[in-house]
Amino acid sequence: MKYTLAVVASLIFALTFAQTDADNLKKIYTTSLTDGMSYQWLDHLSNQIGGRLSGSLNAEKAVEYTKAEFEKLGLDKVWLQPVMVPRWVRGAPEFAYIETSPGQTTSVNICALGGSIETPNGGIKAKVIEVQGLEDLAALGEENIKGKIVFFNRPMQADLIQTFEAYGGCVDQRYSGAMEAGKYGAVGVIVRSMNLRMDDFPHTGTMSYGDLPNSQRIPSAAISTNDAELLSGMLSLNKNINFFFSQNCKQLADVQSYNVIGEITGSEFPNEIIVVGGHLDSWDLGDGSHDDGAGVVQSMDVLRLLKASGITPKRTIRAVLFMNEENGLRGGNKYAEVAKSKNETHIFALESDAGGFTPRGFSFDCSDLMFSKIESWKPLFKPYLIHYFEQGGSGADVGPLKDNTIVLAGLRPDSQRYFDYHHASNDTFDAVNKRELELGAASMTALVYLIDKYGTDSIPNESQIKD
Amino acid sequence: MKYTLAVVASLIFALTFAQTDADNLKKIYTTSLTDGMSYQWLDHLSNQIGGRLSGSLNAEKAVEYTKAEFEKLGLDKVWLQPVMVPRWVRGAPEFAYIETSPGQTTSVNICALGGSIETPNGGIKAKVIEVQGLEDLAALGEENIKGKIVFFNRPMQADLIQTFEAYGGCVDQRYSGAMEAGKYGAVGVIVRSMNLRMDDFPHTGTMSYGDLPNSQRIPSAAISTNDAELLSGMLSLNKNINFFFSQNCKQLADVQSYNVIGEITGSEFPNEIIVVGGHLDSWDLGDGSHDDGAGVVQSMDVLRLLKASGITPKRTIRAVLFMNEENGLRGGNKYAEVAKSKNETHIFALESDAGGFTPRGFSFDCSDLMFSKIESWKPLFKPYLIHYFEQGGSGADVGPLKDNTIVLAGLRPDSQRYFDYHHASNDTFDAVNKRELELGAASMTALVYLIDKYGTDSIPNESQIKD
Repeated sequence: MKYTLAVVASLIFALTFAQTDADNLKKIYTTSLTDGMSYQWLDHLSNQIGGRLSGSLNAEKAVEYTKAEFEKLGLDKVWLQPVMVPRWVRGAPEFAYIETSPGQTTSVNICALGGSIETPNGGIKAKVIEVQGLEDLAALGEENIKGKIVFFNRPMQADLIQTFEAYGGCVDQRYSGAMEAGKYGAVGVIVRSMNLRMDDFPHTGTMSYGDLPNSQRIPSAAISTNDAELLSGMLSLNKNINFFFSQNCKQLADVQSYNVIGEITGSEFPNEIIVVGGHLDSWDLGDGSHDDGAGVVQSMDVLRLLKASGITPKRTIRAVLFMNEENGLRGGNKYAEVAKSKNETHIFALESDAGGFTPRGFSFDCSDLMFSKIESWKPLFKPYLIHYFEQGGSGADVGPLKDNTIVLAGLRPDSQRYFDYHHASNDTFDAVNKRELELGAASMTALVYLIDKYGTDSIPNESQIKD
Repeated sequence: MKYTLAVVASLIFALTFAQTDADNLKKIYTTSLTDGMSYQWLDHLSNQIGGRLSGSLNAEKAVEYTKAEFEKLGLDKVWLQPVMVPRWVRGAPEFAYIETSPGQTTSVNICALGGSIETPNGGIKAKVIEVQGLEDLAALGEENIKGKIVFFNRPMQADLIQTFEAYGGCVDQRYSGAMEAGKYGAVGVIVRSMNLRMDDFPHTGTMSYGDLPNSQRIPSAAISTNDAELLSGMLSLNKNINFFFSQNCKQLADVQSYNVIGEITGSEFPNEIIVVGGHLDSWDLGDGSHDDGAGVVQSMDVLRLLKASGITPKRTIRAVLFMNEENGLRGGNKYAEVAKSKNETHIFALESDAGGFTPRGFSFDCSDLMFSKIESWKPLFKPYLIHYFEQGGSGADVGPLKDNTIVLAGLRPDSQRYFDYHHASNDTFDAVNKRELELGAASMTALVYLIDKYGTDSIPNESQIKD
């Protein structure tokens, strides 16, 4: 009986689709593609501001700029949410070479990993031990590692269709390589860049020493994929070559920063909050255009596209530009902490943090019932080639909001090119295609529109179906 | 009864899927992504040979190179199919400027359209009349057009999700602009480039004078989108500005060229032929990497990936690298003509000519019954994010094979970036992502594998289901 009612409700719901919802989605996509702001905002963030590492002057400029842009949109509320963030600085450019015999050196491209300590004055020169992963260390033992540089060289797996899976399968080397190798007396760590392409760009990213005492902490850096192959090839010919690297990075004291928040207050249910977000900080090497300038400007444009499409949300829609996703997640944690302390009800949070590429769909962290409700919206997205609706992860910044009722989601753009740019100096504005970025903003807006209209509780009841 | 049998057959078929077919698709995709040749071949075509306009020395080199590469693959047959092709040459670089008053000039970026005549010695300088399309000409009449340069400035429509539709909605200006404007006494034609992006690259492409007498034939060129906006803006301020352009292009006598064909002869049904193809010629401005180097190397790799995946096709699989798609379609016509004269049975032909971007699926020109059979294969493609199966067009080169029984198909890659590069000097190797290209080659191979295994006649019968 309950089932039959649900089916009838679904049918009525499906008929309603054909009219208002399809029209509103068309309005949203058309507005984004013909009159979107995301590309213009990204141009400014990337080319007028640039890389926005937490605690940097650029991060501060990005806070000011996005707040000012929110204020131009005529939102109901715009505010800064204070959060203390770590401040790591790269310092003087890194330098590294392979020495095959005294005086015979070949320069290679490296960059310090975020959070790493610097090398001693004059750098480090040592023999190299190449490994394929953390698990190799125990087998080798201290006798083979002590005094050496450990070179983690397990590549991303090319045959995984979803490149984030390939990343997930490798990133332990970057995150924990120095922590683990330090325990065996290594003097430094070099990690193959998390990049599926063969090129000369080293890719940075966060690493951790965990609880390791300072005496065991060793510097760690990423090496470009081309140079990882070079080093590995040279080692296969001669185990006794030396590797030299110097880096000048430092962890400084925490500084004040902010999440930037803009809000359209709900017309009917102002206390039910829907969040869209990306992270405003980025690594320092490029401009952070894909990671995550794209997510920032798309989230901003969700508010603007709703207004420009003449849609008045029933619930409160907030765009949250989180600070410090890359090396601390302080912004995401702070937002959730404040929400909890204020007893706010968040029903849905959507993050865009996978690049400004053609959107393919979304992944959802929610109940099976809610997922099947969302899946029933798929036909509405078909004209926009949005086909990927799967249960799975969402995004790092919205993760801390998780509780028993909130629906978390992540935009899933095409992932083939993402790791070509991720955390590297080529993550710049020219790598972003305007239409691909705008289609992502429109897809996020469309999903937010439907969530706002139909809520997240269950299959909608009749009062919700009437528009 | 028939229906019930079909359902039972489908169910058995579905179970079979779970085993061999899924495994074979996995083998195909893995081989392409870890051991594909398409990217290496494209590197040579683009960077060692370059643009391959029909009748050019480069086109000849491309014929020799691809034939030699086919021969390395240990195919059953490799041959050249002679075809006479037109030869149009660009000559000295084009030059153009806007003259706002005597001596006050601004250079703009143009390129001659393929097939256009040259300008008279010393170029053409004339007043400009801006129009939004062919239909504006009749309304303006000879009194407003005679002696002027007609500037066709209707942009591609940004809100169409599939960019080929936007192209289809504009390209009449390029193809017929000079033919139509010539009838009203215009002295030249300038066409806004078929490009959704604002940039400085003029995009060439084919145009035709139809049956117009030589006396009415006028030179025509494309202008970059940025310069089209500039020209339009200047015209809105002052209708009396002059436009100057000179171009040196010529149509020469037809020359001998070739389609390049490689074949794996079918083990059971050698007389049933499946074609995969792309076109070997390209425009001369860039390297023709996306259009259609990508389709060429993907088609070549279909044969190689089948062999490398240990698949022995029952039917004959031919990769056909067609000559002269861009300005004549002589290769496609010749291939069909020869096939007909030999009474060959072609059951399926798949073309890749929409760029080397992430594949989204295929479009099929076939019966509803056959289409529903193909649609039943969709679940096999889901792990590879191939979701687009629609009835529609196929490709220009395979089009002439059309008859009552053949199934024609086109690979459908993501189309958002295609017109950023199409027929322009930035269609170069660096604009192609290795993984995206390889995923396309794998998707084509997977479809060919299924077509070969299950045939194209109807829902498969039991003898076909057993592997």
